[in-house]
Amino acid sequence: MHFLAGSVEGGDGAPFSALDPIGGAELQPVYREASKDQVDRACVAAAAAADPFAATPPATRAALLRDIADGLQGLGDALVERVQAETALPAARVEGERARTIMQLNQFADLVEDGSWVDARIDHADPDRQPMPKPDLRRMHLPLGPVAVFGASNFPLAYSVAGGDTAPALAAGCPVIVKGHPAHPGTSEMVGGVIQAAVAKNGLPAGTFSLLHGRLHETGEALVSHEAVKAVGFTGSHGGGRALCDIAAARREPIPVFAEMGSANPVVVLPNALRQRGAAVAAQLAASALLAQGQFCTSPGMVVWLDGEGSEAFSATLREQLTGAAPGPAVHPSIRQGYERAMAELTTLPVELSAAADRAVNSSDVCPALLQATPQAFLQNARLRTEIYGPAVLAVVCEDAAQLQQVLAALDGHLTATVHGDGADFVEHAAAVAALRSRAGRLIANGVPTGVEVSSAMVHGGPYPAASDARFSAVGVTSILRWVRPACWQDWPQDQLPVELQDDNPRGISRLVNGEPG
Amino acid sequence: MHFLAGSVEGGDGAPFSALDPIGGAELQPVYREASKDQVDRACVAAAAAADPFAATPPATRAALLRDIADGLQGLGDALVERVQAETALPAARVEGERARTIMQLNQFADLVEDGSWVDARIDHADPDRQPMPKPDLRRMHLPLGPVAVFGASNFPLAYSVAGGDTAPALAAGCPVIVKGHPAHPGTSEMVGGVIQAAVAKNGLPAGTFSLLHGRLHETGEALVSHEAVKAVGFTGSHGGGRALCDIAAARREPIPVFAEMGSANPVVVLPNALRQRGAAVAAQLAASALLAQGQFCTSPGMVVWLDGEGSEAFSATLREQLTGAAPGPAVHPSIRQGYERAMAELTTLPVELSAAADRAVNSSDVCPALLQATPQAFLQNARLRTEIYGPAVLAVVCEDAAQLQQVLAALDGHLTATVHGDGADFVEHAAAVAALRSRAGRLIANGVPTGVEVSSAMVHGGPYPAASDARFSAVGVTSILRWVRPACWQDWPQDQLPVELQDDNPRGISRLVNGEPG
Repeated sequence: MHFLAGSVEGGDGAPFSALDPIGGAELQPVYREASKDQVDRACVAAAAAADPFAATPPATRAALLRDIADGLQGLGDALVERVQAETALPAARVEGERARTIMQLNQFADLVEDGSWVDARIDHADPDRQPMPKPDLRRMHLPLGPVAVFGASNFPLAYSVAGGDTAPALAAGCPVIVKGHPAHPGTSEMVGGVIQAAVAKNGLPAGTFSLLHGRLHETGEALVSHEAVKAVGFTGSHGGGRALCDIAAARREPIPVFAEMGSANPVVVLPNALRQRGAAVAAQLAASALLAQGQFCTSPGMVVWLDGEGSEAFSATLREQLTGAAPGPAVHPSIRQGYERAMAELTTLPVELSAAADRAVNSSDVCPALLQATPQAFLQNARLRTEIYGPAVLAVVCEDAAQLQQVLAALDGHLTATVHGDGADFVEHAAAVAALRSRAGRLIANGVPTGVEVSSAMVHGGPYPAASDARFSAVGVTSILRWVRPACWQDWPQDQLPVELQDDNPRGISRLVNGEPG
Repeated sequence: MHFLAGSVEGGDGAPFSALDPIGGAELQPVYREASKDQVDRACVAAAAAADPFAATPPATRAALLRDIADGLQGLGDALVERVQAETALPAARVEGERARTIMQLNQFADLVEDGSWVDARIDHADPDRQPMPKPDLRRMHLPLGPVAVFGASNFPLAYSVAGGDTAPALAAGCPVIVKGHPAHPGTSEMVGGVIQAAVAKNGLPAGTFSLLHGRLHETGEALVSHEAVKAVGFTGSHGGGRALCDIAAARREPIPVFAEMGSANPVVVLPNALRQRGAAVAAQLAASALLAQGQFCTSPGMVVWLDGEGSEAFSATLREQLTGAAPGPAVHPSIRQGYERAMAELTTLPVELSAAADRAVNSSDVCPALLQATPQAFLQNARLRTEIYGPAVLAVVCEDAAQLQQVLAALDGHLTATVHGDGADFVEHAAAVAALRSRAGRLIANGVPTGVEVSSAMVHGGPYPAASDARFSAVGVTSILRWVRPACWQDWPQDQLPVELQDDNPRGISRLVNGEPG
């Protein structure tokens, strides 16, 4: 069912079902594609909710977020089971993701209560200034208005209905309209019910939240095109993200889209590390690439190193670890099909493929693979430089530092880049590190890109096409900045100012007064 | 001449000249439209400069900005005279604008040296955390890369070659390619020469700065389309700004555009203020609207009030002040022509026009005008709700609060909104204030919108179409946020981190450590 601004609706849209990722059987119940009218009503209700929801005290929004967190926990095993049925993810992973989702919600509740996120700035008046008196100016963040959130297939909880786009939007005071991912409508429905109940419990306008189901582009397009929608959050493929960006940019009023569109997450192994611990690095890299069958946006899908001592051992270990790994199911048959299409396309290119193709593979499984390409092939074939979504790693061995630099200079933007280096590696290959720095949101030394910490210093984003706007992060407390704008009050009556900007600072938040903390 | 990455070039592009705003005579010398090849070479040089310029120490960039500031001052009366010849702005205004431009440059030099603007955040590792060790994460702002800046006609210094887009871009470490406004190529050339000299003096890569002249759309399009350009700053008309946004959004790699596209800056006079000091408010409003012949993006072009005591006096004073004012020249004949076209278009709508049409008006002058429309006409004619660029004010008198609310709800986004209110006005008309709040970047109480303070708490921007992205300000130190992105380092070797993120904080900047100031 759709949750539409406080009501629960079916409708007469085209029916669709979740599919068991193992075997592909249809799962009950049947869901209905949201109609244009339902999209419109959700948006109109969100617009009506925008001003009153923005005006709620921070404690109310914190309570809302904590109630959602508690509600998710309260769904208990039933939620874990439905996620597993719809995604085939292991229970431990689902429980971990649920814990992260709950943690994110509580973190934003804390952020809202702390209040410093509004970046309050006060510049006092100076009526005697020459040649013109200086006015009193006060500034803080206000919510943008209704945010459309597109659920992600690979994070059915953490980046879906109550995930990392929704939590900061609600924290900021933006109504949210979620278009649930069609791969897990049952999961979406359970979480949507929790949010709707929390909205009602806290006496918030019904339009504060809606969840619509759909799998057609037209439904997403209707949502992003709606004049009531003021910003969009998306996690998914490049094709999907770019399509939403294009729709948003073509509106009469263009709106910001934060699309996190995945990434090949290049890994560079420098000579000392290769020589001293190449096999260990290879094993660590393979384990990261195999996590969740490579269905993380930070999955390392590309590794580059310099030929030399340790090169053979590195390559052999990587091949052994990848091709020896047990295949497993993708979260949805469409993901598996996409991976198979990508592998078929890659075999038409000058690439050497090593996969456990000789082993019996369940027809639902994706099969880990190592691909090897020469630097020349890599430079000549753009497809080799883009993400392969699934458990595949492309290896490129360079002859020398100049060739390494050529390879790195050909990279587009990525969410992450990883460097393995020991001793003087970082200094001797500073140009390679600089090339990665200018192309990635997060640099990792001697580790793996998977495992995205939810913290203040995290950046989950990066130059296009990793994200549609490198100026924001989709993870961590700073992700709230996607959904707010600064607003300024000049010579405004004290008692009409938001409390965050009043002289006596009743909330005790951090502020900049005349440019200094105070 | 063009300043192209350290060289001075003419070229064989189509010739054009500045025009004397009074009389329209061509001013010497002749300038040449930048060719596609010149655009390309400036962009390629900027791309080559991006990494080395980004890596310069803050002291170098501060010295660059201060040298530019000093160089502007050093141009002395010759600069003021050229600006006056090209814009017909009074000397005092030009000198004030020069002082502001110099102040902005020095303010960004201070910001770069202070260093806290990088928003450094450090989250320490916790290797013992369960179920997963917590990594060390460090984050700060890095420059986006080459920024294309489009000079504005109405601020030949403060929003042109060395203005409010260029200064923060250079401060952040972004190379800048300016497309000078064709209305004041001589002014642009003088300022460009100062910047090129300062770039050379500080030993910076030649591609750090280029200035290209041009008046054709194709030249701007070539610049914004160039793959080396990573962001765009623009101040000007809605048509021009939106065109650049559309080009940037359609690129293979879409890039952010901050376009400040002007605004009608609505003024609402509430009943107590109308009754108690209506005539004074009207005089203050007229004076603001007449400043620089209404050629400020914050010029108040619309006033709305409730019929009642003081209404007649307000209206009479406003008409008297506007129609009694001396006409004056626009900064360029094309601006005057645009104003005349707008007035001709408005007279085809249900609007009552009061202008000093019976007075002898110099053919170069724009003639101040009061336009009056009924709320019904205002709601029915979208043209009445958009900016009239020039010294015209549209007045709308509402019958009651409900009608006022309808009128305000029909407004698009504006840079500013002004409220005049006394006593209980703000409380009794809270809905009207809220409607303005959600549609404006800056709210002003009992003042005028003209006069944009350059300070930390300023917001010069606002919901579309006032600006293309309400999340940023074009004025004040926070305007640097348009040109940077957050970047993260995970478990990175201490000695390879930027100094801003090293444990011992050698620059002594403000940072967030584990979420707390420290």
